[in-house]
Amino acid sequence: MTGDPTAAPAPGVPLAAVDRELVEGVAFDSSGLVPAIVQDADGGQVLMLAYMNRDALARTIATGRTWLWSRSRQELWCKGETSGDRQYVREVRVDCDGDAVLLLVDQHGDAACHTKEWSCFHRPAARGPGVPRPDPRP
Amino acid sequence: MTGDPTAAPAPGVPLAAVDRELVEGVAFDSSGLVPAIVQDADGGQVLMLAYMNRDALARTIATGRTWLWSRSRQELWCKGETSGDRQYVREVRVDCDGDAVLLLVDQHGDAACHTKEWSCFHRPAARGPGVPRPDPRP
Repeated sequence: MTGDPTAAPAPGVPLAAVDRELVEGVAFDSSGLVPAIVQDADGGQVLMLAYMNRDALARTIATGRTWLWSRSRQELWCKGETSGDRQYVREVRVDCDGDAVLLLVDQHGDAACHTKEWSCFHRPAARGPGVPRPDPRP
Repeated sequence: MTGDPTAAPAPGVPLAAVDRELVEGVAFDSSGLVPAIVQDADGGQVLMLAYMNRDALARTIATGRTWLWSRSRQELWCKGETSGDRQYVREVRVDCDGDAVLLLVDQHGDAACHTKEWSCFHRPAARGPGVPRPDPRP
């Protein structure tokens, strides 16, 4: 825990090289939300899937911290500000049709998941061998 | 292109070690859908975000191919069966609250994205340095 929950969130490093047209063009759904995948910039693990409204996206870019919209609490929150498991954002990417975003982050603290597992996606539901590519990657 | 679009999709290797309770417990939304993140099992790139209904999830596990629900076309589809950019699934993971899934796949063909970029998340919207962890990862 990081103490006073009413204190302003610890600052990150504001993002630069902002593509305003791309950001403005993000297609929020009928609830005003877009799914946001958060990925560990170092290890590559997919850490969590959460949701952003336009304000959360703007705050994320302005502060370099992960800001999200909680659908259950119906409020903006800054990831890790209560738990200490903060995320400092290195990059925001937008997908080809503009209706999903990907954050690449430095994950601080113990974990991204409230269970204290590194990733929220820690439960295997099924596994197989896959099929290796027969040819080199393009 | 892989020829006759009416042909049955090329088989993958069916997934095993299936946690039926976890699969049955996936929390589909009011539209019967759950977001599915697809990640390159080798390179670690997040390739795409799409949606599954219960049938798509069952088919994915049964066939070892990525099956999805197209919200625009309102139909099930098997990723890559028309483009040749098939995905062979190595693992399905479910997140901590059961309302998102992660697929780890062998990406075949040219790309995951219809634009022929490797990942649908190829557009940077903003970048920064992040904040490196002050301590080793747990």
